[in-house]
Amino acid sequence: MPILTLSQMVAGQEADLFLLMTAKEQLTTREGKPYFRVGFRDSGREVVFPIWDNSPWAVDCRDKWTPGAFYKVRGVYRETNYGPQLDIRKIRETCDADAADGFSPTLCLPQSRFDPEQMFDELLQIAGERIAEPALRGLVEGILTENRAAVLRMPAARHNHHAFVGGLLEHTLSVTRTAVYLADKYAEYYPEMAPPLDRSLVAAGAILHDIGKLRELDQRPEGTVYSAAGALVGHLLQGRDMVREAAAGSDIPPESLLRLEHLIIAHQRLPEWGSPKPPMTPEALIVHYCDDLDAKFAMMVAILQTDTNPGPVTSKKNILMQHVYRGEEGIRD
Amino acid sequence: MPILTLSQMVAGQEADLFLLMTAKEQLTTREGKPYFRVGFRDSGREVVFPIWDNSPWAVDCRDKWTPGAFYKVRGVYRETNYGPQLDIRKIRETCDADAADGFSPTLCLPQSRFDPEQMFDELLQIAGERIAEPALRGLVEGILTENRAAVLRMPAARHNHHAFVGGLLEHTLSVTRTAVYLADKYAEYYPEMAPPLDRSLVAAGAILHDIGKLRELDQRPEGTVYSAAGALVGHLLQGRDMVREAAAGSDIPPESLLRLEHLIIAHQRLPEWGSPKPPMTPEALIVHYCDDLDAKFAMMVAILQTDTNPGPVTSKKNILMQHVYRGEEGIRD
Amino acid sequence: MPILTLSQMVAGQEADLFLLMTAKEQLTTREGKPYFRVGFRDSGREVVFPIWDNSPWAVDCRDKWTPGAFYKVRGVYRETNYGPQLDIRKIRETCDADAADGFSPTLCLPQSRFDPEQMFDELLQIAGERIAEPALRGLVEGILTENRAAVLRMPAARHNHHAFVGGLLEHTLSVTRTAVYLADKYAEYYPEMAPPLDRSLVAAGAILHDIGKLRELDQRPEGTVYSAAGALVGHLLQGRDMVREAAAGSDIPPESLLRLEHLIIAHQRLPEWGSPKPPMTPEALIVHYCDDLDAKFAMMVAILQTDTNPGPVTSKKNILMQHVYRGEEGIRD
Amino acid sequence: MPILTLSQMVAGQEADLFLLMTAKEQLTTREGKPYFRVGFRDSGREVVFPIWDNSPWAVDCRDKWTPGAFYKVRGVYRETNYGPQLDIRKIRETCDADAADGFSPTLCLPQSRFDPEQMFDELLQIAGERIAEPALRGLVEGILTENRAAVLRMPAARHNHHAFVGGLLEHTLSVTRTAVYLADKYAEYYPEMAPPLDRSLVAAGAILHDIGKLRELDQRPEGTVYSAAGALVGHLLQGRDMVREAAAGSDIPPESLLRLEHLIIAHQRLPEWGSPKPPMTPEALIVHYCDDLDAKFAMMVAILQTDTNPGPVTSKKNILMQHVYRGEEGIRD
Amino acid sequence: MPILTLSQMVAGQEADLFLLMTAKEQLTTREGKPYFRVGFRDSGREVVFPIWDNSPWAVDCRDKWTPGAFYKVRGVYRETNYGPQLDIRKIRETCDADAADGFSPTLCLPQSRFDPEQMFDELLQIAGERIAEPALRGLVEGILTENRAAVLRMPAARHNHHAFVGGLLEHTLSVTRTAVYLADKYAEYYPEMAPPLDRSLVAAGAILHDIGKLRELDQRPEGTVYSAAGALVGHLLQGRDMVREAAAGSDIPPESLLRLEHLIIAHQRLPEWGSPKPPMTPEALIVHYCDDLDAKFAMMVAILQTDTNPGPVTSKKNILMQHVYRGEEGIRD
Amino acid sequence: MPILTLSQMVAGQEADLFLLMTAKEQLTTREGKPYFRVGFRDSGREVVFPIWDNSPWAVDCRDKWTPGAFYKVRGVYRETNYGPQLDIRKIRETCDADAADGFSPTLCLPQSRFDPEQMFDELLQIAGERIAEPALRGLVEGILTENRAAVLRMPAARHNHHAFVGGLLEHTLSVTRTAVYLADKYAEYYPEMAPPLDRSLVAAGAILHDIGKLRELDQRPEGTVYSAAGALVGHLLQGRDMVREAAAGSDIPPESLLRLEHLIIAHQRLPEWGSPKPPMTPEALIVHYCDDLDAKFAMMVAILQTDTNPGPVTSKKNILMQHVYRGEEGIRD
Repeated sequence: MPILTLSQMVAGQEADLFLLMTAKEQLTTREGKPYFRVGFRDSGREVVFPIWDNSPWAVDCRDKWTPGAFYKVRGVYRETNYGPQLDIRKIRETCDADAADGFSPTLCLPQSRFDPEQMFDELLQIAGERIAEPALRGLVEGILTENRAAVLRMPAARHNHHAFVGGLLEHTLSVTRTAVYLADKYAEYYPEMAPPLDRSLVAAGAILHDIGKLRELDQRPEGTVYSAAGALVGHLLQGRDMVREAAAGSDIPPESLLRLEHLIIAHQRLPEWGSPKPPMTPEALIVHYCDDLDAKFAMMVAILQTDTNPGPVTSKKNILMQHVYRGEEGIRD
Repeated sequence: MPILTLSQMVAGQEADLFLLMTAKEQLTTREGKPYFRVGFRDSGREVVFPIWDNSPWAVDCRDKWTPGAFYKVRGVYRETNYGPQLDIRKIRETCDADAADGFSPTLCLPQSRFDPEQMFDELLQIAGERIAEPALRGLVEGILTENRAAVLRMPAARHNHHAFVGGLLEHTLSVTRTAVYLADKYAEYYPEMAPPLDRSLVAAGAILHDIGKLRELDQRPEGTVYSAAGALVGHLLQGRDMVREAAAGSDIPPESLLRLEHLIIAHQRLPEWGSPKPPMTPEALIVHYCDDLDAKFAMMVAILQTDTNPGPVTSKKNILMQHVYRGEEGIRD
Repeated sequence: MPILTLSQMVAGQEADLFLLMTAKEQLTTREGKPYFRVGFRDSGREVVFPIWDNSPWAVDCRDKWTPGAFYKVRGVYRETNYGPQLDIRKIRETCDADAADGFSPTLCLPQSRFDPEQMFDELLQIAGERIAEPALRGLVEGILTENRAAVLRMPAARHNHHAFVGGLLEHTLSVTRTAVYLADKYAEYYPEMAPPLDRSLVAAGAILHDIGKLRELDQRPEGTVYSAAGALVGHLLQGRDMVREAAAGSDIPPESLLRLEHLIIAHQRLPEWGSPKPPMTPEALIVHYCDDLDAKFAMMVAILQTDTNPGPVTSKKNILMQHVYRGEEGIRD
Repeated sequence: MPILTLSQMVAGQEADLFLLMTAKEQLTTREGKPYFRVGFRDSGREVVFPIWDNSPWAVDCRDKWTPGAFYKVRGVYRETNYGPQLDIRKIRETCDADAADGFSPTLCLPQSRFDPEQMFDELLQIAGERIAEPALRGLVEGILTENRAAVLRMPAARHNHHAFVGGLLEHTLSVTRTAVYLADKYAEYYPEMAPPLDRSLVAAGAILHDIGKLRELDQRPEGTVYSAAGALVGHLLQGRDMVREAAAGSDIPPESLLRLEHLIIAHQRLPEWGSPKPPMTPEALIVHYCDDLDAKFAMMVAILQTDTNPGPVTSKKNILMQHVYRGEEGIRD
Repeated sequence: MPILTLSQMVAGQEADLFLLMTAKEQLTTREGKPYFRVGFRDSGREVVFPIWDNSPWAVDCRDKWTPGAFYKVRGVYRETNYGPQLDIRKIRETCDADAADGFSPTLCLPQSRFDPEQMFDELLQIAGERIAEPALRGLVEGILTENRAAVLRMPAARHNHHAFVGGLLEHTLSVTRTAVYLADKYAEYYPEMAPPLDRSLVAAGAILHDIGKLRELDQRPEGTVYSAAGALVGHLLQGRDMVREAAAGSDIPPESLLRLEHLIIAHQRLPEWGSPKPPMTPEALIVHYCDDLDAKFAMMVAILQTDTNPGPVTSKKNILMQHVYRGEEGIRD
Repeated sequence: MPILTLSQMVAGQEADLFLLMTAKEQLTTREGKPYFRVGFRDSGREVVFPIWDNSPWAVDCRDKWTPGAFYKVRGVYRETNYGPQLDIRKIRETCDADAADGFSPTLCLPQSRFDPEQMFDELLQIAGERIAEPALRGLVEGILTENRAAVLRMPAARHNHHAFVGGLLEHTLSVTRTAVYLADKYAEYYPEMAPPLDRSLVAAGAILHDIGKLRELDQRPEGTVYSAAGALVGHLLQGRDMVREAAAGSDIPPESLLRLEHLIIAHQRLPEWGSPKPPMTPEALIVHYCDDLDAKFAMMVAILQTDTNPGPVTSKKNILMQHVYRGEEGIRD
């Protein structure tokens, strides 16, 4: 039996899969028939389906299966109007030996298309090259290095955009690249600015703008949730906290620190998006636009990939709350 | 010559006054005539008037008078449609000996009608009696005591409400009294709440909700202005900073600290008023309402006292952006 | 067989219950199977479940059971993901003799936790003590006394808050208590107000602010609905009507009457909440805040009691349209 | 010396005029020079100008001239960038004999271009012909007849539109004509409506939609102001009061009365324009549109007549808060 | 067997029908049972129901039935809480011979109650009589005549109002009639306007205000959808395009053309409704109001006909997002 | 006497200047004193000052000076609180010979800091290199070339940003550079997009997004105003017109043309900013962000250069309607 991923399967095909259990919920049909609604996923797709009372798996499901655990599953793939499902033929928890067949827990979660280690190194390199002021550079490098493990894994959001392993890093690197480009450009356009545009600050701010997500979100195998502090305070303020904690005792000039704090809390611009202040410095303005475009672009790409509305435009029921044009050449997968 | 205050004078009267110079601006009339626009104030009133080029005070005004300095002035009081003015007959800077005549710098600024020392003591007493949890009580008492001098003087805002010496304290005490009353009331109404309403938290939150104004505002003799950090970050976040700094190393339960931080940043409720999160706990909800009513009530009282619009209602051009009803019995001062 | 209430039962338990039928709807499954969806409730809980075509109760349900009627039911209690349900074993309409077993129609509706008679007496007492102006006091006492029966029973709203027998009274008394406290407080804070804060008006306004609900809502055993005039005109205007009708021919000073009318129509403050005018008097401002806090606090308590979202915060899909923080100590019932 | 009106005069011309004094305000220039700012008007134009301290009229102005009184003035007309002014040569209060020269107090206020008596008769005639239900017709005719004197004079608003003697009547008649036309039209278009479109109600509602302005506004010679009740309650509710008072004891069907009350309070549609309910009946929808168009059209005509902004469009600083296109053919007067 | 329409049938009745197939969707129940969801309609009603796997029609449905094709169906009519359904007894595609029994494709779509040919002629007649300027009249007549076939059939919108064959024409004629009435009226009211109200422009603008719908919408037998250009550009701009194309090379005065273009793009007034400019001319203002009322009135009539909410008002879940009053006399069909 | 520009002069200095007259308005002081308010400017600064009745220039000013004409002026520079002014000593219209002293009309208007010819060439070069599709490239090159003269001169707006000669070109080039950078970047990030990101379209759209300003604005020596069509239709639609006119008869694929038209009308994103549709394609999204950032950045730079508010932040009364942080290092010119 071949070992495949869910994305590789076609309707009716049988194969072995390494899957993460994402959900198990005890429910009852309107007619009173009890069943479990279970979910499994690997890096590219998720299946959700019922285990009926009279299924041969009913007892195991109830007593043994655990969300957050990993399973080797033999199953037949089906496509229904309730989404993709699986007929389970065999199932057992994964074991060490499965590594030989290519199993690794992180392979069961959606992943950035880019290598996290490489992205991390590039981010560090930009910090090293683009932040001229030593104390500020030290602060940025310090925060990255100390949170390396979390930065390599964290998604950028629970649902809205870059919601996959390494998503925060992918988004941050993209924002930083654009921000560095624009800082150079506008510093050249407006040499008369007083004080001059602070390119170090733009780079530092772009790298750290979403760093508070490390505290706001709580990443678990079965899904990412808000931490209590994340819900009550939010990543803008938490990111500023991380900067202030790292700056304590450093030589970073107070004016630079203040502008960096401001940039972080202002980067969402609108109060209804959570920013208590709008961007009040040119540096904060640049980072806001880089961030906003990168998130909105990712959303639009995702909408074009997943929307199934017939006709030339997608439905309006998406994260952008608007139609997106698919075009006549658009091929939906 | 009697020593009076500006509020005691009637049009045409001459007297000696102890005044703070609040403004000196060099201007030119449309016809090209140069003059200085100067301002003086004591606790109850401000006068603003021109010193023309041909005035006997023109040279002294230009070379010697300094905003923020205190003067003994002999003058004749006038009322004009540009507001109250003063014809200066004599003027000199105040000296130590003036104390014997009752001069004190704080008498030249608008004051709370209540004694700051007494208000401060009452606030400390409420903290002592109403905050059951010792570490939380210690944190509140510590913050108050360490900032005693500033708390005794600070206004609650630059213009909007309680904009006078001791205004922050007056507002805070009023909010705290109402909050304590309501916490008792609703704890009794809803004994089934789980967790129960945290009355200690309500008291602590009410006392500290605006504490960040000590960092947001910069109180100078000639007027209160925003500090750089106040403009870029704001008092909600700065108040939370003060609490976090004071809590470092203390025994305060993390859950209590988090709820207190949330209460402070959420107390203005609406994002467009600067709160990045709405009140998400019953305690934060109570403090928000106490604060909002106290501020709005003070605004309405001030509008009724100062508006000069004819007819039964005031103008809409005020801080509430609405008509206020003066009533037929209303006597305008 | 024990006589219990729905709230006392655990899954699988059988007992006798006195229940009000709240709904009977003839429906068809997607597969074309016809059934009745029926609802029953007592003071603490409601059960909704299907009566299938092949049920022994199918004919009785169709021909005899009537929404709004009361039944003695023997049933087995079940908990499903469609909410609590009941397996009916026996059912008959209630009769006079059931009173001996503790049955009373009002016991089948959710009730205020406070005794209506006692709340009514306290409200009257506040009117008597706190409204100094005799004609105004007479007007308030008259309206309360003439509508005593309705006031004792009416909910404060159909769904939003205090939606139970006596809810209007519970809410009104709570608002009045806070309003009286705040009127005393602010009258003392601002003795210079001209005209002085009218504490009689605050008490009268707090007592009558929602009185129009007696005309807006139509309370029936099976649920509260809007009356035609309630839908087309609304309780703010209807409450003002009741005051104007009661004031006709009385000695109430026109200025007091006008301020009271204004207070009632302005108490929701925002035009989008139905107030054609914002609070334009200090008295109206106070009553608005007391009312708004009392309603929002009740909503937040209810959300914390009923939300079943996992994690530290509730869902946003509630009457406040925001997350509420449950906290780590929070125990959900 | 010819007797003219202000509109007939050209710059530099001298003439006799019958004028109403509209304003007298005691002011001081920035340089301390005292003066009176006075206003006079007749039906077509207003002049506002200073009476300086050294004017021969200074003492009379201070001691004798009274806003609201009528004067025969001989003056020279001037046009300045502060608007049209008058050099007074002679001035005395009007006397009975001036009637012989054509003076009448109402000639000193801006007037509807249509004869009020004739408009009133036409409105009564429409009520008689278009309101089929006798009790409803009687109610409308009764309200009009009892308020005949006020209806003949009242403006439709203080500033916004139809702000002249007879303006309420002109606006009401125009709205009623359109409403009657549309009621006939849509009754014919949608004969299947159940209940059928109530054409009597449309006519009655159109005639009475703004009747509350008689109570909201207080028309004085020197200008129209809000009454206290107008400010605190507003003409929508006051118009409904007038209808309810007139309906007391009549045979008008409760359903018709309720729909009429609703139509009046809903005719401004948006809550921010003061309507506590949107139009919820087809009849209310029709009257809203007739009213809104008639007011907006009058505003646009007035803007085109008075705006002096250069270029193809008017300024945005007008009651519609938008540019209006003047066009190349547009000739400004 | 009688030949009926769906609207003529009562529950349980069997008849022959000529129907258009509107939908065929392959679905699966939650339990994994596959089925087709099919829809059929004639001019007055639509039925939607499942074809189960074990139905005798399952194979034909899968292989032969085609949305957009016409069928002669013998069926039994059923009413369920999922809406009206049909038990198919016989089914075949229509053939030429069916014309003898009254079949015509257009009879299978909802129709305007008015004869399209007659409406078209009246619209042309208004153009001929009411547009005085020859080049403008020629332009309007030309556009109508060249698009005659499409104008006779097009609905005014996909769902919101006049969503039936001839709906655009019915709406346009109604708007034009009112606009012509109002243009005459206001031209008479304001003879002093400079330039005078352009009645030709009002008529032309009313006739052409929605003409861009011919390009925005793509009318197919199975339903109307947005064209790609309609989605990306919209009918306001497309209507202006049609006018500009028709005007190329004509003698139409540039000022008239410009005002007509403006009228078309401004006729929805609010930017959030798609108008890039508000009505800036009196002519555009009139057409906006005629259009808005005609659409809203049709919506309200439709809501009253279709809403099934119990009680005196409809649900708020409708295109107007508000309650509509049904009234006590209201009989729901 | 030296020949200087206004920006080179210091208070009290006398020099010769080449100036454009920008304004001449006949006014009267409050005291009735008549005067002319005149304005003159060169590339870097504008002076506005009164010519009094008794000035030696009064008659010449009234009879000869003309806004839009150029003058050689000898004057003394003064700085007042009404802004910079000039005491005219000599004045005459410029003549051909002045060219020898460096006079050229365009030097009297504010200029882009970049050479227009060079910017134009770069824009053409980008079009040539970055638009792969030949017909689309031809269309863009054609529009640029045909409008070369206007493109070289036009400002990007009347006031808001880039309001100087060559401003439209400077802004367009900056937007295009960023857009080309981002198109490359996101095409690389999302290679799986179907259809792939159209980089030609991004380049074409960036170049043409504001091209309609050539029709919207009417550039005159004395200032830029809206054309009639600009006011009634606006540059978004006018830019789309220019593209459609240029595309008529070309081989440009309809799908590309449609996407380009959409990009232009959607580039301001929000309906309240004039876009009838939001960006519905990834290409339109990119251009919107490039445009918005470039405009906002220019506004913020201008605010920092011109605001004179004391303290760490600027006033809120600016085009961004918010405070901008000046910082402690900020030196105001």
